[in-house]
Amino acid sequence: MSNKAVSKKKDLNVGIVGYGFMGRTHSNAYLQAPRFFDVAYRPVLKAVCARNADRVKGFAENWGYQSVETDWRALVTRKDIDLIDIASPNDTHAEIAIAAAKAGKMVLCEKPLGRTAEEAKAMVDAVEKARVPNMVWYNYRRVPAVVLLKKLLDEDRFGRIFHYRSQFLQDWTISQDLPQGGEGLWRLDSAVAGSGVTGDLLAHNIDMALWLNGPITEIAFLCRFQNGSLALFEATRHARGHKALFTLEINGERASAAWDLHDLHRLNYFDHRDEGQLRGWKSVHITDGDHPYMKNWWVPGLQIGYEHTFIHQVADFLVALDGNRTAAPTFRDGLATDYVTDAVLKSAKTKKWEAVPVA
Amino acid sequence: MSNKAVSKKKDLNVGIVGYGFMGRTHSNAYLQAPRFFDVAYRPVLKAVCARNADRVKGFAENWGYQSVETDWRALVTRKDIDLIDIASPNDTHAEIAIAAAKAGKMVLCEKPLGRTAEEAKAMVDAVEKARVPNMVWYNYRRVPAVVLLKKLLDEDRFGRIFHYRSQFLQDWTISQDLPQGGEGLWRLDSAVAGSGVTGDLLAHNIDMALWLNGPITEIAFLCRFQNGSLALFEATRHARGHKALFTLEINGERASAAWDLHDLHRLNYFDHRDEGQLRGWKSVHITDGDHPYMKNWWVPGLQIGYEHTFIHQVADFLVALDGNRTAAPTFRDGLATDYVTDAVLKSAKTKKWEAVPVA
Amino acid sequence: MSNKAVSKKKDLNVGIVGYGFMGRTHSNAYLQAPRFFDVAYRPVLKAVCARNADRVKGFAENWGYQSVETDWRALVTRKDIDLIDIASPNDTHAEIAIAAAKAGKMVLCEKPLGRTAEEAKAMVDAVEKARVPNMVWYNYRRVPAVVLLKKLLDEDRFGRIFHYRSQFLQDWTISQDLPQGGEGLWRLDSAVAGSGVTGDLLAHNIDMALWLNGPITEIAFLCRFQNGSLALFEATRHARGHKALFTLEINGERASAAWDLHDLHRLNYFDHRDEGQLRGWKSVHITDGDHPYMKNWWVPGLQIGYEHTFIHQVADFLVALDGNRTAAPTFRDGLATDYVTDAVLKSAKTKKWEAVPVA
Amino acid sequence: MSNKAVSKKKDLNVGIVGYGFMGRTHSNAYLQAPRFFDVAYRPVLKAVCARNADRVKGFAENWGYQSVETDWRALVTRKDIDLIDIASPNDTHAEIAIAAAKAGKMVLCEKPLGRTAEEAKAMVDAVEKARVPNMVWYNYRRVPAVVLLKKLLDEDRFGRIFHYRSQFLQDWTISQDLPQGGEGLWRLDSAVAGSGVTGDLLAHNIDMALWLNGPITEIAFLCRFQNGSLALFEATRHARGHKALFTLEINGERASAAWDLHDLHRLNYFDHRDEGQLRGWKSVHITDGDHPYMKNWWVPGLQIGYEHTFIHQVADFLVALDGNRTAAPTFRDGLATDYVTDAVLKSAKTKKWEAVPVA
Repeated sequence: MSNKAVSKKKDLNVGIVGYGFMGRTHSNAYLQAPRFFDVAYRPVLKAVCARNADRVKGFAENWGYQSVETDWRALVTRKDIDLIDIASPNDTHAEIAIAAAKAGKMVLCEKPLGRTAEEAKAMVDAVEKARVPNMVWYNYRRVPAVVLLKKLLDEDRFGRIFHYRSQFLQDWTISQDLPQGGEGLWRLDSAVAGSGVTGDLLAHNIDMALWLNGPITEIAFLCRFQNGSLALFEATRHARGHKALFTLEINGERASAAWDLHDLHRLNYFDHRDEGQLRGWKSVHITDGDHPYMKNWWVPGLQIGYEHTFIHQVADFLVALDGNRTAAPTFRDGLATDYVTDAVLKSAKTKKWEAVPVA
Repeated sequence: MSNKAVSKKKDLNVGIVGYGFMGRTHSNAYLQAPRFFDVAYRPVLKAVCARNADRVKGFAENWGYQSVETDWRALVTRKDIDLIDIASPNDTHAEIAIAAAKAGKMVLCEKPLGRTAEEAKAMVDAVEKARVPNMVWYNYRRVPAVVLLKKLLDEDRFGRIFHYRSQFLQDWTISQDLPQGGEGLWRLDSAVAGSGVTGDLLAHNIDMALWLNGPITEIAFLCRFQNGSLALFEATRHARGHKALFTLEINGERASAAWDLHDLHRLNYFDHRDEGQLRGWKSVHITDGDHPYMKNWWVPGLQIGYEHTFIHQVADFLVALDGNRTAAPTFRDGLATDYVTDAVLKSAKTKKWEAVPVA
Repeated sequence: MSNKAVSKKKDLNVGIVGYGFMGRTHSNAYLQAPRFFDVAYRPVLKAVCARNADRVKGFAENWGYQSVETDWRALVTRKDIDLIDIASPNDTHAEIAIAAAKAGKMVLCEKPLGRTAEEAKAMVDAVEKARVPNMVWYNYRRVPAVVLLKKLLDEDRFGRIFHYRSQFLQDWTISQDLPQGGEGLWRLDSAVAGSGVTGDLLAHNIDMALWLNGPITEIAFLCRFQNGSLALFEATRHARGHKALFTLEINGERASAAWDLHDLHRLNYFDHRDEGQLRGWKSVHITDGDHPYMKNWWVPGLQIGYEHTFIHQVADFLVALDGNRTAAPTFRDGLATDYVTDAVLKSAKTKKWEAVPVA
Repeated sequence: MSNKAVSKKKDLNVGIVGYGFMGRTHSNAYLQAPRFFDVAYRPVLKAVCARNADRVKGFAENWGYQSVETDWRALVTRKDIDLIDIASPNDTHAEIAIAAAKAGKMVLCEKPLGRTAEEAKAMVDAVEKARVPNMVWYNYRRVPAVVLLKKLLDEDRFGRIFHYRSQFLQDWTISQDLPQGGEGLWRLDSAVAGSGVTGDLLAHNIDMALWLNGPITEIAFLCRFQNGSLALFEATRHARGHKALFTLEINGERASAAWDLHDLHRLNYFDHRDEGQLRGWKSVHITDGDHPYMKNWWVPGLQIGYEHTFIHQVADFLVALDGNRTAAPTFRDGLATDYVTDAVLKSAKTKKWEAVPVA
């Protein structure tokens, strides 16, 4: 952002629930967004809430929160709070979000929205009834290379889509002590109500796919989109050697593209219009000033990291807020993902294809 | 091979059916194998058979075949032929193979063995009844990097296997004129009796998987192996930007490995025993003298190509022959793949998981 | 950083000169370092100084500087400033640094230290006479992958070093309007006193090389290190297609390693002790908790970016300060690089090898 | 090559000197070229010559040579020989080539042409005086990806060239027993008359550079081309971890390209005309039917290897022969490389830039 006279910013008072990994990424995003993006609001870190009073105090000091709470019910009714940010475990999402909406607060919620689509549906109803701004933290939508891909798709550069494939591979739960059994790995996860690899990792794959490639109509790991394309998804924590390998590839009639999180600035792009002898995959380093978000950061070739996706999301939320618009993914978008992951778990039990409801 | 006095080689008289793409790769393999490998037999190109007399004559001249035939029935009964090699279209495999076996000839057959498992089963019965050496040309088993991977698996370096995934991506059938419809691409192929992408590409994925990771018990694109691991397979000719991208990756408890055909000399290997800070994927350029087959070729760093997989297969066949042993994949191995591809096609229709019979 | 009670931090009052690209990276680093690293000091942004009063005010507002100055002479004598940070153009470095040192301030200076080694020598004399902490912003020393490489070298894993090569390739100055002529590209730069590609890009290559591989004794683009190894360096802004491709590779008797800035989390490492068939280059994604700096950020697989190198440098400076130690690279280290770049420019004129003085 | 009636081929009687690594690659090329390429001549393997009678007999049997010789003087005067191929050590090249030319034979010679430019000049004089076809085995000119690059350069797609860089990195001579000393590694080689890394590896870099980027005018490792571009070359056998890593990159005003021998089918290409947001390096897998030489081999995506470069060279030689034309690189081209490598060795001694004579 240039140094021209900074427009006077309006305060947006934030109260956050949770101080874990996501508490850190969100707090950082609130502080950094107005420094790097030209937004009308400056988030004010009013309060952080968690049950452990000592630890929450340390967190507040580190990030500059003005106060602490140990009961989220107290937080959501405070008059000096405009926005409730839910960064606590999945089983708390629905209750807090619904209460916050009823109290007229804007609500931001970590993903997955609910543990089940049923929970998520109740959350959507609450924010839509209260007409409050709402957003789910599917942060990977804000990787510059992914945003550029979305733009290329919207420009209809790909033509009819034939294939989509996406993985989220990790290896940190491989251990002799876990009951992985011949029962299959995803079963293990499906036993954990609303969480496990399905809600944790696969939800990212699904949200990204719905955003880039539209609604899914039926699924059995192999999945069919409304646009006729077929997709394969895989999310696991037993893929030895992979840390957080979130990948995606899309193959259309005229173009294809691929991306992964371990090399997040690269968009690999194949354009069928390229001349014959030189057809090939282009490795584009998405760090130029005309690439999404990048003019707000450094110069071509210099990279940003994971936490920047959250900063971008806050910046977009603040811009939308100023324009009385909604920043996606909304709770309704989050519900769409929950419908798909519910169908995945059902298909794992029935061993058949399962239809996916419309969100 | 060193220049020491070359052992006197025995003749092995070959009659081949078909002069297309595979006719060329097989013919080249028969000529090259004894020059680069220390084998007891030298294949003699006795006869090539095809219906077009003019073209078969040109082929014979180019490769040095001593005679031509235009009726395979004449070929399989010639006294001066030891081995019948079937490189003609899939719908001719069963009839020729069974007749050749009855005539007491060794039989080599292009893949897939039969158009259906039923056809393949009859072929297995014929060669096993006749007790003749038999082999299916699943040539990718002979890529040095893949052979090394097999060796590493056999040494139990991977521990329990969790995941296997394999693709064969091509794009050459994408065209406005083909009826690809919303019906799904693999359906198009499943309509073609025993051929299409399933028999053409997927069969390579399956044969390789069975060899490396053991029997498959049930399948629905997502597939389960007898060893408890789960796998995803994908074969398509509508993946824009990919020419012949045959890939595989296997994730075990202690190690993982990945390979692809576009960079066929690379084996990417992850060893969990590596020390903490330096854990990572090793990119091994499989061109050293102690790598499979490579001492017979050039020096470290210098590559071989596609046709060499056929040369290796002939060399292995000749060595086995001299030792009264069988070189894999035999017809029975080919049948195992046909059982799986049949189940794939069935699952595509029933939209359920389907069990795979034991070959 | 965990949420345990945050130790009360001491104030470190910062006055910065310059509000450009480097003004932003340094300001961000002062704010972020104490939030992510357990340091005893918290930098307080006391004042920013630049000639344009309007723009410096906008910068101060954005980053939270408490005051502005338009004359650096006023800044360096303010009683309420502990540390002067020089982020202004190269031709101002010496004068400001010497005045700041005389005023007893700690001095941090952007690279290259001086336009010439002569200037740099005067700066070293000033800070060493005043006995004030001093540091040069060669930020790439703080890339986690590079720090790990330094550690591996210090552990003597590489044995005798044979080769070092390093590039800094950019393309943004290629234009029809620039007088690039047959005279050669580096000549163009050598005509610009103390700046150009030599001081701008090559200085990074040299600083890194001196840190990793020790003193250079003579140079003519091909260069010899004191340890007997030979090196090739190349820095250019006319390498079409490259944005900020800073690369390095080091080949030792027992190990080799390579890194580049466009994929900054990867360390490619070759260990000669690896067993025969599996010798290869390991691609290590430097994002684990036991990798340099990374435990202060996110979880394995998640990346950081360019600005984090500055945050690390501030964190290290603050830790050193608390321990009455010096964080490198000091001004004396910066002088060593200036000696080398001076010799490069001389060699370009004499077309001979030139000796490099000891810093 | 299609199966249409094969045109009757004329015999070309070959006598080869040497049965080592290069004896094998040349022999294979003579046999394979007429099978895969539509050439008017079919090389007939008349005789192989080497001093060890037993080993040369084994070699002859393996490759089908009709006779053996143990004295090259007898070979070069045989009436039934059209072409002498010199695949023996460097110190035999000049004497054999000059005698063969005098005897009116076509002469093919392994690289480098002479041990010194002086030797090479005498060889050029001999073949040019005798007006016999002559060629040097700089085989890497025939890698399809490299041929395509040459074509792109000839089409002036790159505009003015700024940079060229090329390496040949190996590690097989690193050993405790070799006297590598502080004297520098390339010195070791320069002491070996006409051989060592300079003639063995660097000669390949130079020949390729002269072919792609035109004459070199002066050199000191950093080297200047007649077209004004600057280049860096490096050839070593002490680069731990590299097997035969022959690389090259060329940067022009409008385009850049890079290639390496470990991934020989890839041409990495950057086109400055590409639209802004999608500028990037294209990875082109040079295996299509419209790529150089590839229609004679398999189908898109399937690779060829090292020995194919020799097959291509023979095919080109035979085609040229039939058209009474010359296939490059001729002996005169080989002399140009020797002029450069001589200057490299001289510069290593004088520690100055040295001019390169015009070949």
